[in-house]
Amino acid sequence: MVSRITSRKNPLVRQAAVLADSAGRRREERRFFCEGARLCEEAARSEIAIEACFFTEKAREKYGKYLEAVQQRSGALYLVEEHVAGLLSGTKTSQGVFCLCAWPQGLRDFPTGGCPAKSPCVVLENIQDPGNLGTVLRTAEALGIEQVVLLGSCCDPLSPKALRASMGAVFRLRLFLAESAEPLCGFLREAGYSLWAAVPGREAVPVTNLNFSGMLPAVFIGNEGNGLTAETIALCGQKVTIPMTGRAESLNASAASTILLWEMRRNGTG
Amino acid sequence: MVSRITSRKNPLVRQAAVLADSAGRRREERRFFCEGARLCEEAARSEIAIEACFFTEKAREKYGKYLEAVQQRSGALYLVEEHVAGLLSGTKTSQGVFCLCAWPQGLRDFPTGGCPAKSPCVVLENIQDPGNLGTVLRTAEALGIEQVVLLGSCCDPLSPKALRASMGAVFRLRLFLAESAEPLCGFLREAGYSLWAAVPGREAVPVTNLNFSGMLPAVFIGNEGNGLTAETIALCGQKVTIPMTGRAESLNASAASTILLWEMRRNGTG
Repeated sequence: MVSRITSRKNPLVRQAAVLADSAGRRREERRFFCEGARLCEEAARSEIAIEACFFTEKAREKYGKYLEAVQQRSGALYLVEEHVAGLLSGTKTSQGVFCLCAWPQGLRDFPTGGCPAKSPCVVLENIQDPGNLGTVLRTAEALGIEQVVLLGSCCDPLSPKALRASMGAVFRLRLFLAESAEPLCGFLREAGYSLWAAVPGREAVPVTNLNFSGMLPAVFIGNEGNGLTAETIALCGQKVTIPMTGRAESLNASAASTILLWEMRRNGTG
Repeated sequence: MVSRITSRKNPLVRQAAVLADSAGRRREERRFFCEGARLCEEAARSEIAIEACFFTEKAREKYGKYLEAVQQRSGALYLVEEHVAGLLSGTKTSQGVFCLCAWPQGLRDFPTGGCPAKSPCVVLENIQDPGNLGTVLRTAEALGIEQVVLLGSCCDPLSPKALRASMGAVFRLRLFLAESAEPLCGFLREAGYSLWAAVPGREAVPVTNLNFSGMLPAVFIGNEGNGLTAETIALCGQKVTIPMTGRAESLNASAASTILLWEMRRNGTG
């Protein structure tokens, strides 16, 4: 059954709008808000529980194919007017499809969330830009790296921007949140991981000289502007770098991450 | 000598604002407009001729280190009021440093601009997003790929967004503009290049099976949404692909380009 929402003051709409805006509220309520026909469909096709789906009349006509999967999985359906969709949307040209979702089971604290599987792992420290974070998650998934740890004060992977850039990778990866590096590094080392801090500079091992396929690697990648913290680099012990033949230090954070993720899986592909 | 500009109606300010907005005008006048302390300094340190430099009083205090290099190379200096800088700026938080520059000598038509050097070359076809284009150019430079051809209807590498994302790589690369693929491919092949079309899918050679260091490669990369045109793929003859172990087709355009550029230089680094 489809209910109608005609007012921006509808309590459920207000809740959803707050969830879209606030990382703190998402953590508190263990829910998040998701926008876009394709992204909502990705949520529906994953293990994510969908509490409510909102869509406009126009979206029902235009995105019926995507909506079908979402509607089947959703606890409640709401047809919303355009001006209500305008309030819910974080984009200029909204598709008019939204979901209120339960917290992904794959997104947990580390290590209380359980021991990671024995497969390559990426640790992102203090990543600030949600677009960057989402892109790295999308690339990790595409290259078959299934475990990512968000260390320190990373931005929220469930923010609308991060979700959009991740193309739904957030729904399918094993994502762990770790507050501080020391227990994380200890735990990973005990589990048999070889810890590598990605740094610029010559004292590090060029990634081209490393054969990741001969080990269980955990590669630590730092913040866009400042790289990894000194503490984390020290805890990792081993350093890896991307050799550049051109101008030094001119890869952006996202390109550097792509190369490291690719090298982690390079020998496993093809 | 520093002149003062207090009005948004100043003819030079108006010219500069039009150049920032219009790719057509940039081509016509063979000039472009550049914003940002760091980027203007990069222009000054390259071969770019700087016709005029504009800066605010605040910028003079805050970005003196960058401005010095620019002022030495600039034909004319203008101290502009904040509201004038606001008109010139394409960003929300302007640094208040701008340059009016002559067309880069490294940006030329192909092949009339001369035979490319015998070094690896990337061809980008119909890239639409200036941020993507700038990022790919920045990555190419960082990895030591010095020649890039912009084929078909690529967006303008001299637009403010592309310049910003490129971190000035546009000033230093050899950039060629090519209208259509047929003469370009003929010319490259005659010059000894091995032409590779980057495509998704299984009928292509996995990039991990290719040793680019044994050849003179020209790798063709297509548009964000649609990839290369069928015509260009046919003209290249050879196809290369990025093997993915995760979800298929889920690398974004910029990540895919990064991996291909990296593989082109991988054996030459380290």
